[in-house]
Amino acid sequence: MIYLDNAATTRMADAVWEEMHPFFREQYGNPSGMYRLAAKSKEAIAKARSRAASLIGSRADEIYFTSGGTESDNWALKAVFAEYNSEGKHIITTKIEHPAVLRTCAWLEKEHGAEVTYLDVDAEGRVDPEAVRQAIRPDTILISVMAANNEIGTIEPVKEIGQIAKEKGILFHTDAVQAFGQIPIDVDAMGIDLLSASGHKVNGPKGVGILYIRRSAKVSPLIHGGAQERNRRAGTENVPAIVGMGAAAALAGSKMHAKAEKETAARNYLIRRIREEIPYVKLNGPEENRLPNNVNVCIAFAQSESMLIMLDQKGICASGGSACATGSLEASHVLRAIGIPENHARSALRLTLSEENTEAELDSVVTELKGIVERLRKMSAKYEAFLAKEKSSNTSESWIQV
Amino acid sequence: MIYLDNAATTRMADAVWEEMHPFFREQYGNPSGMYRLAAKSKEAIAKARSRAASLIGSRADEIYFTSGGTESDNWALKAVFAEYNSEGKHIITTKIEHPAVLRTCAWLEKEHGAEVTYLDVDAEGRVDPEAVRQAIRPDTILISVMAANNEIGTIEPVKEIGQIAKEKGILFHTDAVQAFGQIPIDVDAMGIDLLSASGHKVNGPKGVGILYIRRSAKVSPLIHGGAQERNRRAGTENVPAIVGMGAAAALAGSKMHAKAEKETAARNYLIRRIREEIPYVKLNGPEENRLPNNVNVCIAFAQSESMLIMLDQKGICASGGSACATGSLEASHVLRAIGIPENHARSALRLTLSEENTEAELDSVVTELKGIVERLRKMSAKYEAFLAKEKSSNTSESWIQV
Repeated sequence: MIYLDNAATTRMADAVWEEMHPFFREQYGNPSGMYRLAAKSKEAIAKARSRAASLIGSRADEIYFTSGGTESDNWALKAVFAEYNSEGKHIITTKIEHPAVLRTCAWLEKEHGAEVTYLDVDAEGRVDPEAVRQAIRPDTILISVMAANNEIGTIEPVKEIGQIAKEKGILFHTDAVQAFGQIPIDVDAMGIDLLSASGHKVNGPKGVGILYIRRSAKVSPLIHGGAQERNRRAGTENVPAIVGMGAAAALAGSKMHAKAEKETAARNYLIRRIREEIPYVKLNGPEENRLPNNVNVCIAFAQSESMLIMLDQKGICASGGSACATGSLEASHVLRAIGIPENHARSALRLTLSEENTEAELDSVVTELKGIVERLRKMSAKYEAFLAKEKSSNTSESWIQV
Repeated sequence: MIYLDNAATTRMADAVWEEMHPFFREQYGNPSGMYRLAAKSKEAIAKARSRAASLIGSRADEIYFTSGGTESDNWALKAVFAEYNSEGKHIITTKIEHPAVLRTCAWLEKEHGAEVTYLDVDAEGRVDPEAVRQAIRPDTILISVMAANNEIGTIEPVKEIGQIAKEKGILFHTDAVQAFGQIPIDVDAMGIDLLSASGHKVNGPKGVGILYIRRSAKVSPLIHGGAQERNRRAGTENVPAIVGMGAAAALAGSKMHAKAEKETAARNYLIRRIREEIPYVKLNGPEENRLPNNVNVCIAFAQSESMLIMLDQKGICASGGSACATGSLEASHVLRAIGIPENHARSALRLTLSEENTEAELDSVVTELKGIVERLRKMSAKYEAFLAKEKSSNTSESWIQV
């Protein structure tokens, strides 16, 4: 098996596993208990909190553990809206956010009278900080812009946006689910007030995430009940997963530079070979300022779904875009936002690497993909028509209208 | 170590572990993926869903996986209120619910204009179904009564309440976090429309729970985002924990009768010995209709916290009531609701057994507890004064005013 869907989820690192697994059956105490078994769980959570904090330059007491990135996004947006809507109901976000942000915004609009500005992005998926500035109104209470896009890997100008938010005194949330542990983040230097991250995207466990909340931000709970997480997130702590999240954060921090370097080289190699060896391919997202492990291409005259099925038959795990949108009838909202026509958006292929992918694996992927695309194009009436038109035409017509 | 805090959390069963652990590092696929690794995760979730459904007699497609019992309670109450508040804003619940229900109700009252009736319970913690009937108003949209109390083990007349709810056409939610897998539950026979349960209370993993939602109930999502859980609970599925929850449900179902029998005998033995051998002890909750594994006593002239610390020194893990309230300055709301005076509520001790506790362990607990109580009472000025008064008095004064 060649696993190239690390943006969907990652294999847990052995080091994470080693730290985490004793908390299932040996150190299983409920951290709220009044005995040593419980105290060990409590200490383990404190350690995990410090480790997660270290990775983003926050204080440990600004980290809250949640059930994942989606809950963190929901909590950030809903709680800020609940606390600040007496000052204004306007939120600024972008068209390329994850559904956890977009659908939460839609819910706030529909159910609570929020007014949301969805900013456009450029052809590479970049949000213009000046567009953020211009969208600010007197009643703007929150800016939410992701740190890096999950489909096309675009790294957003978080620091510039954070600076504008600070200037204007507006809270700034960033969905860092894809960026956390992949690229350096510093909440103070970047002016971030709230940050969502997830464990399973960085070789940690599923079912755990964090919400960083700057101490000065008023944020009410999303989930009410017991006094866990300093009265802000009720429910028995998921101790093993929290330990795993802490271990994953520590591991990601320690190897970030080396991992990024290795993945960037592999990513560039894969992009170059696909572009050189498969005609009618477009890279989605930028060449620079791109997540180290993200390749996303439109391969004209080949449907995503068909490519994925055929790649799977060769033991290659890949994605058409976001795992969260699989099975959806709509073309990717991210690809549409960067101007890809709908038919081409349905030919997207996302390959997200890990540091463990070997050059031999990448070579094999290119070989198999070439064969698959050739076969699919042979069955494509559209491709035939296109070739005929291209031959007869004197001007070399562009295959994609972007 | 003698572990007697199984109502707080349980040690994961080996059988659960065996099924669950491969999903961390081997079968780690995101269920939304378009490849076999993902399909295996998807199938595993489907199996877990069926197993959880079996235990409560529901259809598989009425089971939704959450991050735990607290999220399930929050979801049930908030979503029903959101969907039905145009028909009425009245909710009926009880004074002895878990904070996940009580604080959610308080939030609905404060932020959304809900009107909540908190029913009294009798001296054993039982809710009177007739009191439920009488509390119903034309604008009542939801009845939420727990299946069994987490502190004192009272099993509530869920079936009778469900019948009343059905008669009146009102939705009925039950927090079954302590009852699930311990006592038989059948959502149809009991007229339950929504049911919350948790994995880690039944030898499954932390960080996972279920919300059963009857097909006819309109329930909007609590957490918005991707299309997971049939568009009702967003976020990458916590596959290993879901598998563990399914395995725990299957295991609990298969051994429920034998486990209950064993635990009931152990519970009764422990209650009898404590009452016979330690003076001034009151059993909280009923003798019958009590969770098989729950012992909860007030031990006059001994503070809970001191007992717990001293028990811990002897390697015994116990609780003063609810794990979720540990460290809280307030006396247990459950004990207050059954009429225990505040000073006695602070002398509560909860011992919650598992089928693995041996008679030798229980004997050891009684011996240690006797010694601890004696030592604490020797230091108690109140106890001294009480004894002096009791000696000088002709009538044997009751030590507790209940």
